Amino acid sequence: MLVLMQSGATESEIAQVEERICELGFTPHTMPGKTATAIGITGNSGPLEPAMFAGLAGIARVIAVTQPFKLVSREVKQDDTVIDFGDASIGGAELALMAGPCSVESRDQIMQAAIAAKAAGAKFLRGGAFKPRTSPYAFQGLKEEGLKLLAEARDATGLRVVTEVKDTETLEMVADYADVLQVGARNMQNYSLLEALGNIRQPVLLKRGMSATIKEWLMCAEYVVARGNRQVILCERGLRTFETMTRNTMDVGAIPLVKHLSHLPVVADPSHGIGIAQHVTPLALGCVAAGADGLIIEMHPDPSRALSDGDQSLTPEGFSDLVQKVERVAAAVGRRVVKADDEWKGAS
Amino acid sequence: MLVLMQSGATESEIAQVEERICELGFTPHTMPGKTATAIGITGNSGPLEPAMFAGLAGIARVIAVTQPFKLVSREVKQDDTVIDFGDASIGGAELALMAGPCSVESRDQIMQAAIAAKAAGAKFLRGGAFKPRTSPYAFQGLKEEGLKLLAEARDATGLRVVTEVKDTETLEMVADYADVLQVGARNMQNYSLLEALGNIRQPVLLKRGMSATIKEWLMCAEYVVARGNRQVILCERGLRTFETMTRNTMDVGAIPLVKHLSHLPVVADPSHGIGIAQHVTPLALGCVAAGADGLIIEMHPDPSRALSDGDQSLTPEGFSDLVQKVERVAAAVGRRVVKADDEWKGAS
Amino acid sequence: MLVLMQSGATESEIAQVEERICELGFTPHTMPGKTATAIGITGNSGPLEPAMFAGLAGIARVIAVTQPFKLVSREVKQDDTVIDFGDASIGGAELALMAGPCSVESRDQIMQAAIAAKAAGAKFLRGGAFKPRTSPYAFQGLKEEGLKLLAEARDATGLRVVTEVKDTETLEMVADYADVLQVGARNMQNYSLLEALGNIRQPVLLKRGMSATIKEWLMCAEYVVARGNRQVILCERGLRTFETMTRNTMDVGAIPLVKHLSHLPVVADPSHGIGIAQHVTPLALGCVAAGADGLIIEMHPDPSRALSDGDQSLTPEGFSDLVQKVERVAAAVGRRVVKADDEWKGAS
Amino acid sequence: MLVLMQSGATESEIAQVEERICELGFTPHTMPGKTATAIGITGNSGPLEPAMFAGLAGIARVIAVTQPFKLVSREVKQDDTVIDFGDASIGGAELALMAGPCSVESRDQIMQAAIAAKAAGAKFLRGGAFKPRTSPYAFQGLKEEGLKLLAEARDATGLRVVTEVKDTETLEMVADYADVLQVGARNMQNYSLLEALGNIRQPVLLKRGMSATIKEWLMCAEYVVARGNRQVILCERGLRTFETMTRNTMDVGAIPLVKHLSHLPVVADPSHGIGIAQHVTPLALGCVAAGADGLIIEMHPDPSRALSDGDQSLTPEGFSDLVQKVERVAAAVGRRVVKADDEWKGAS
Repeated sequence: MLVLMQSGATESEIAQVEERICELGFTPHTMPGKTATAIGITGNSGPLEPAMFAGLAGIARVIAVTQPFKLVSREVKQDDTVIDFGDASIGGAELALMAGPCSVESRDQIMQAAIAAKAAGAKFLRGGAFKPRTSPYAFQGLKEEGLKLLAEARDATGLRVVTEVKDTETLEMVADYADVLQVGARNMQNYSLLEALGNIRQPVLLKRGMSATIKEWLMCAEYVVARGNRQVILCERGLRTFETMTRNTMDVGAIPLVKHLSHLPVVADPSHGIGIAQHVTPLALGCVAAGADGLIIEMHPDPSRALSDGDQSLTPEGFSDLVQKVERVAAAVGRRVVKADDEWKGAS
Repeated sequence: MLVLMQSGATESEIAQVEERICELGFTPHTMPGKTATAIGITGNSGPLEPAMFAGLAGIARVIAVTQPFKLVSREVKQDDTVIDFGDASIGGAELALMAGPCSVESRDQIMQAAIAAKAAGAKFLRGGAFKPRTSPYAFQGLKEEGLKLLAEARDATGLRVVTEVKDTETLEMVADYADVLQVGARNMQNYSLLEALGNIRQPVLLKRGMSATIKEWLMCAEYVVARGNRQVILCERGLRTFETMTRNTMDVGAIPLVKHLSHLPVVADPSHGIGIAQHVTPLALGCVAAGADGLIIEMHPDPSRALSDGDQSLTPEGFSDLVQKVERVAAAVGRRVVKADDEWKGAS
Repeated sequence: MLVLMQSGATESEIAQVEERICELGFTPHTMPGKTATAIGITGNSGPLEPAMFAGLAGIARVIAVTQPFKLVSREVKQDDTVIDFGDASIGGAELALMAGPCSVESRDQIMQAAIAAKAAGAKFLRGGAFKPRTSPYAFQGLKEEGLKLLAEARDATGLRVVTEVKDTETLEMVADYADVLQVGARNMQNYSLLEALGNIRQPVLLKRGMSATIKEWLMCAEYVVARGNRQVILCERGLRTFETMTRNTMDVGAIPLVKHLSHLPVVADPSHGIGIAQHVTPLALGCVAAGADGLIIEMHPDPSRALSDGDQSLTPEGFSDLVQKVERVAAAVGRRVVKADDEWKGAS
Repeated sequence: MLVLMQSGATESEIAQVEERICELGFTPHTMPGKTATAIGITGNSGPLEPAMFAGLAGIARVIAVTQPFKLVSREVKQDDTVIDFGDASIGGAELALMAGPCSVESRDQIMQAAIAAKAAGAKFLRGGAFKPRTSPYAFQGLKEEGLKLLAEARDATGLRVVTEVKDTETLEMVADYADVLQVGARNMQNYSLLEALGNIRQPVLLKRGMSATIKEWLMCAEYVVARGNRQVILCERGLRTFETMTRNTMDVGAIPLVKHLSHLPVVADPSHGIGIAQHVTPLALGCVAAGADGLIIEMHPDPSRALSDGDQSLTPEGFSDLVQKVERVAAAVGRRVVKADDEWKGAS
């Protein structure tokens, strides 16, 4: 259920509605909007009677939410959620560009990647320090050392750091270094991790599980938002299908559909979506044209020597070429790439 | 195997190579290219010795083809195949736009659809006269009457007709009326039909089966081309996956991959790819940005009354809006929409 | 809709109901059952009023059929359909065993296979004369020569012949030689072929398409039965999934579900279901335990030299071992293997 | 790599080989077998030279392991792993039967379930205390209260308790109450949890992820075993496919294949595998016939009132019927059900 306040409702009126919801034994989630405030209600097991709010001032309407996901639904919040990073943002008119290697491997590697990412126009640096791997014997990442290198690269370039958090034990450590906490596809339904992420106040990039339905994916976002962390960025990264020529099958159609169902931003990961470096750029263009709010791209200073995902990593030149093409397609659909180096004044 | 002729090779030199191939018990497939002629060889069960062509003049190289598909492979023919329809083409710089209802239902309906398609900028009219349906009790199309109405709509508008052929029995009849013969997803591996289509000389639009791998799809195109009909247009229309919110999962990543593997044109069918009218346009933009050579769009004068596929059909206004957006994205990736009404002089 | 007659209804009463259905513009399908006759009605577009049958004698009830498949549904016919071959049957207490090579390759090969199949206990010989192949350059079967060899093997052993029909053009020829006409998985939705099979009166073995839902599969059976050919045997042969270690993923759970939904017999093809010879027997046992009415097994006198499907073909010894194990599991679930050589008196 | 010792090798010879492996910087995993001891080696990045073990006594052979999973592979250990629970076991000739509700809901409910499970012949009681749910607003289990009720039911009946552990935070608590720690399908690739389970010494039941390949599943088992916990039971519970009539598609063929690839026991969960109570029994029989080492069945005293998974839960009578049928099929494939009440002497 959702209580939509009148556009001129006062803080005191809002507070009284919140109080009534608490008295009823439910949880209020107050979301200020462009024109009016909405108060989502969770904890109820069925529809509520509008009469429960009788006598309270400032209420425009009481609305039933038909989707199983509530707080992340467009029904509850009509305006796009825009996540603000000062001189960058995700979910607004600006197209967010994130780039970097699968894994942080060394200071040289991440620094070169960061410089190249920034030079091409990215504002976010991706790179894994904790790597979930299918084999217990494979390289599992540099761990805290990797996080420190990411932070160094941020200090040197002004790029924000997007990095994966793989469990609750290391969440606090990762949160100390990261700007955006990435949840990997295999952890999408790790509900304990999602709950822990709901308790902090840092942006979360939630990858869609490789065989997750759109509904399941949005329910996972709901886990985070229901605990109070509203800064969730959804990331489509391709589905597991029978096709073996590509690593995954990118569900580009999910982008407009999810943006219709939810107010959360949706970014696309065409690197995992196809898994073949030479086809990443056209697929990236397709995602942007279909309405993605950003791209997260694997780029490595020397893909042939990458410790992981070399086959799908662009070179710095390849990424620069991608950005130039993305700029044209973004413009054609009313979005724009705002380059980092146009405005960043530096950390020094 | 493939014999690549020198750029100045004479017709007589080419004929001698063809003769040698026949003498060896194999079949030559001669394909003129921009700079040189290539002669594909089929019927051999293993690699051939270049020495088999010793003493023949005009040969540049003898090349092994590594893919199981031969004649449709880029290895055999580097240049894009462009299918020419006089004042329209598929596979070149021009983006091909095809629109119309799922089924031909009446003269009024198909005529309104054709006029709207043409007004918006399409050069091809789609519409089913023979409809394969999952239920034997469902509307199976107007059959020959439907074909006649399509031909009437062509005469009135100059649009080319794309319509499905569902079996060899009705192939001749459909070929009499159609400009492009569509093979539906469920018939992709109907090899008897493919062979029959290989024996005629009209363009074929081959839809990808809903769970066909890219390799299987290209092998089906090979069935047609191996019989001598080189005018095959591939059509990506979405895969069957576990996702239930969308009708299919559009494999947008397959577009650049297939264009890399094959010289054949690839068009996209976002209507079936997502199955929800309001999301067809963004998905169509995604396909164009990813490199599709054209779009085939379900559009109905009154979708709410359509006998089939109403949920995924655009209105005429919706299609016109789609074309305007497509023009901008096409321009951003170096393609253009050439509107039919700019140039057609009429049938009268 | 379905008109259920009283158990003592006369032929004349039945005829009057059929007549009324025809007068209403619909098609009656009269199905005698163990205790009473049912008359299915097709051609109606919505539920019929029981009042439409007012004044007619011998009617027990008028029942709405809730499934989209009508005549193949258990709602319409409660008793199991048993297809009778004289000294063999499919769908009753006897478990039907079918074995033989993927393709007929030579007289020696098919004769050895037939003798081994019979010796082990099979009553049906499978073998393909027309082979749909993914490559146009691969061995496509011996065609009519193969059919003649199958007929010879039948004459020599008394086994019934199960062989694939791939198109309407060759249907008459195949029907002349075959006892059971197999429709391959890729042709499951070849509706023109299904309609042609509906017009003849020979048993049809309808394989489930590799990505067909159970509902679609039953609708394809409905296509055949709606035309009057009620002798349809369903065959589960595995689904296409993401798993690459096995050729397909055998949907063993579909066996009890389909037998619940439909009165038609269901046989299992574990050879295609797993695609690895050494695991065919345990999977076959699983299918029998789950309620399959029979098994169709690829067996070749020398699998290592098979022209197709050698990897999944049992040797004659392997098949004999399978049958012995099957007999024990069949007995545990109330079915039995009746060996051909116990009763067949020979063709001479 | 794997060092296979001679059958009469002494402890000291084994210790010397272990020492050499440590000196080389790798990890030895010593596994006593029926006839000889094998020492698996992990931590190497490529094949090792047999010469590295020159001069050491008691070595029969040094063998390369070709699979990416090492310690769980049949290559490393030929004998079946049998997990021993005193008067019950999993992986040997006895078929393990596990039954109980999806969630522990109340003392009455779990006690009735336990009594019914035991009466029918089960030796293991399943029941969830921590429930991962797709909705953050759904019932999440009774948590520690649920664990206490499970322990009470164990004390009353002698059944072993199988219950899910959903995160590392609650692992110690769950391990205090449980006999077997279940890892749910959505947590299969929660590597932090797997590592924590590798560090304890209690049996783990590892469900296959709903879209996990067999290789990925075995790699997850490898995560646990590599840390020293060799008591891993694999559980096939169905794959996510396009089929919507069933909850999942049970991969029965995976049972013999995985038992061929690995020495670990494999149990089947037909309740989740099909999701429809009336078809659980035939599917269970299919799994047993195909070689499963046990069954885990959802059974609820009153399925219509279950808080979760009521649709797929058997009644106590239904479960009793299942066991009787399973006994016959098990006997047909050389396995047996040893009923708990034949031998258990009580907790007092």
